[in-house]
Amino acid sequence: MVGASEQVAVVGGGVIGLSVAWRLAGSGRRVVLVDPAPASGASWIAGGMLAPVTEAWPGEEAGLALGLESVKRWPAFADELGSGLLNATGTLIVAVDAADSGQLELLAAHLGELGRDVERLSARELRAVEPGVAATVRSGLSVPGDLAVDNRRLLSALLEGCRRRGVRFVREPVVSVGPGSVALDESTVECGVAVVAAGAWSAGLHPALAGLVRPVKGEILRLRARRGSLPPPRRTVRALVESRPLYLVPRPGGELVVGATQYEVGYDSDVTVSGVADLLADARRVWPSLGDYALVESAAGLRAGSTDNRPVIDWLEPGVLAATGHHRNGLLLAPVTADRVLELVASR
Amino acid sequence: MVGASEQVAVVGGGVIGLSVAWRLAGSGRRVVLVDPAPASGASWIAGGMLAPVTEAWPGEEAGLALGLESVKRWPAFADELGSGLLNATGTLIVAVDAADSGQLELLAAHLGELGRDVERLSARELRAVEPGVAATVRSGLSVPGDLAVDNRRLLSALLEGCRRRGVRFVREPVVSVGPGSVALDESTVECGVAVVAAGAWSAGLHPALAGLVRPVKGEILRLRARRGSLPPPRRTVRALVESRPLYLVPRPGGELVVGATQYEVGYDSDVTVSGVADLLADARRVWPSLGDYALVESAAGLRAGSTDNRPVIDWLEPGVLAATGHHRNGLLLAPVTADRVLELVASR
Repeated sequence: MVGASEQVAVVGGGVIGLSVAWRLAGSGRRVVLVDPAPASGASWIAGGMLAPVTEAWPGEEAGLALGLESVKRWPAFADELGSGLLNATGTLIVAVDAADSGQLELLAAHLGELGRDVERLSARELRAVEPGVAATVRSGLSVPGDLAVDNRRLLSALLEGCRRRGVRFVREPVVSVGPGSVALDESTVECGVAVVAAGAWSAGLHPALAGLVRPVKGEILRLRARRGSLPPPRRTVRALVESRPLYLVPRPGGELVVGATQYEVGYDSDVTVSGVADLLADARRVWPSLGDYALVESAAGLRAGSTDNRPVIDWLEPGVLAATGHHRNGLLLAPVTADRVLELVASR
Repeated sequence: MVGASEQVAVVGGGVIGLSVAWRLAGSGRRVVLVDPAPASGASWIAGGMLAPVTEAWPGEEAGLALGLESVKRWPAFADELGSGLLNATGTLIVAVDAADSGQLELLAAHLGELGRDVERLSARELRAVEPGVAATVRSGLSVPGDLAVDNRRLLSALLEGCRRRGVRFVREPVVSVGPGSVALDESTVECGVAVVAAGAWSAGLHPALAGLVRPVKGEILRLRARRGSLPPPRRTVRALVESRPLYLVPRPGGELVVGATQYEVGYDSDVTVSGVADLLADARRVWPSLGDYALVESAAGLRAGSTDNRPVIDWLEPGVLAATGHHRNGLLLAPVTADRVLELVASR
């Protein structure tokens, strides 16, 4: 037990837990990561947009500031992990019906007020930039600088990075987290600090998180362009389809991630027939040649929603930190979250 | 090499190859089955309807007779392999639009002429029998006696039965088949008789099959009723949806197999976005509560189409038999095919 009080136990092996463990281990801490199946949850299912700007909305300026701070840190964060993780071709946002066009106008005006670069595109200009956009799409915005990350390559790189830095993995489910210890089914992991980074499962692990974090289900599809298919977009394409948000995120090799529904249905991660049918129908209204693509995977993940749509990154009690509640922004906020946890642990 | 000339080599580990190998081994023959991945092709993807009657159509009486002969042999065949493989609750055939209703009338008249039991059901009577049928479905037929087989349990039982009877498995791809030998990449399997049962891949294995057998792609979905979902039908439900054929085949435990598209696209087994979207849309028009089901699997298989829609079960040359070209009827015709191959080998 000598030295167990110096150990940091990270509970959760999604992008937040892995980033925190990797950063802590890089600063010389002894780290143990506890998760029955690291790199398999919502971060594995995700689309990987690092898009604070195009997710901006009046009234959510604080969230935007945090996102912008994190996106600034992303290139260095990714560089340290390996090459080819980021796609920096920017984002198009497109509107399918007249009401959707109205929403884009509001967004463009808001982004202008914030001093962000944004270009309004007519239907014709849109198709000059991305010829696969449907002829029925009405208007769009081009937002240069938005990044996307290949979430699966990132998770592999983080796992590998953790291993190289000596992080120890305990592949077991966690029952509860308290000061100085992480309780498993049959044993206990002793530690000086425990970090709860268990995403949608965090609420059940510490009383201070009960009611603060809840599961928000998202369904996603992975498609692949086939020989003879029109190719996928080069940029991330976000769309409003009769007010329903949709995104198409290209990956190297002709793969395209399509998301995402949002349902508040508790711990249910079934992929439903209606969810898949709706996603496919909306996606084909934006990018008609998808009909010919191969459907490679359909999956659902549970994001960690919080009461104010912002993450909880703070002490819950002496010796227990939380880094959870990142909702749709776990990948985006991973660098800033890991840095903040590092500061909190150091200032203890 | 002593005794190699007495050995039968079965090329292909789908339902036909496995049934042939199992039967031959049961009659005392020494059998080797060659397939890189037995029980993984079109038979694994299939719906499992054993439905010669509801597939009947004027002009295809010879096919019907063969199907009826095989379906008669199915209960004993299944009994020998294990219990719970067959579902004998019968079939409903339903029509979605007025033209589909007209087609059902033709089918009912044809079946009547053949002396088959068939009951016409109004929309209301249909829903008394299967309450989940859509309110917009116009009419239907009830065909008692049609069987369905759980294809995946069947394939497992055949694999196990082959093992118990001493069939040897060579898990390698086959390059060609000739009298006395099956050529692999780096070696040869010697035999007295070779049986080509390689489904859609048969055409490339022996010159006499070139042009006789071709791949016909079929896409299938596996759904699962969720807690709170309306349950799946108890019977197999076949439907015509604006002339497109569709089937819903229930499995134990709330699973439902939905098929099947048919495409003539060569050796392409991608599941396409449009294929899945079309199947889901048609299926929901017949059984609306499917929207709430979980989408468990989407897959495509390549059936072995033949030029006259009937299987090729005969000598290609001395020492080389074919048992292929079963198209949509591989599962249905497995017992009669295995028996016929047994006779051909015995009478040699």
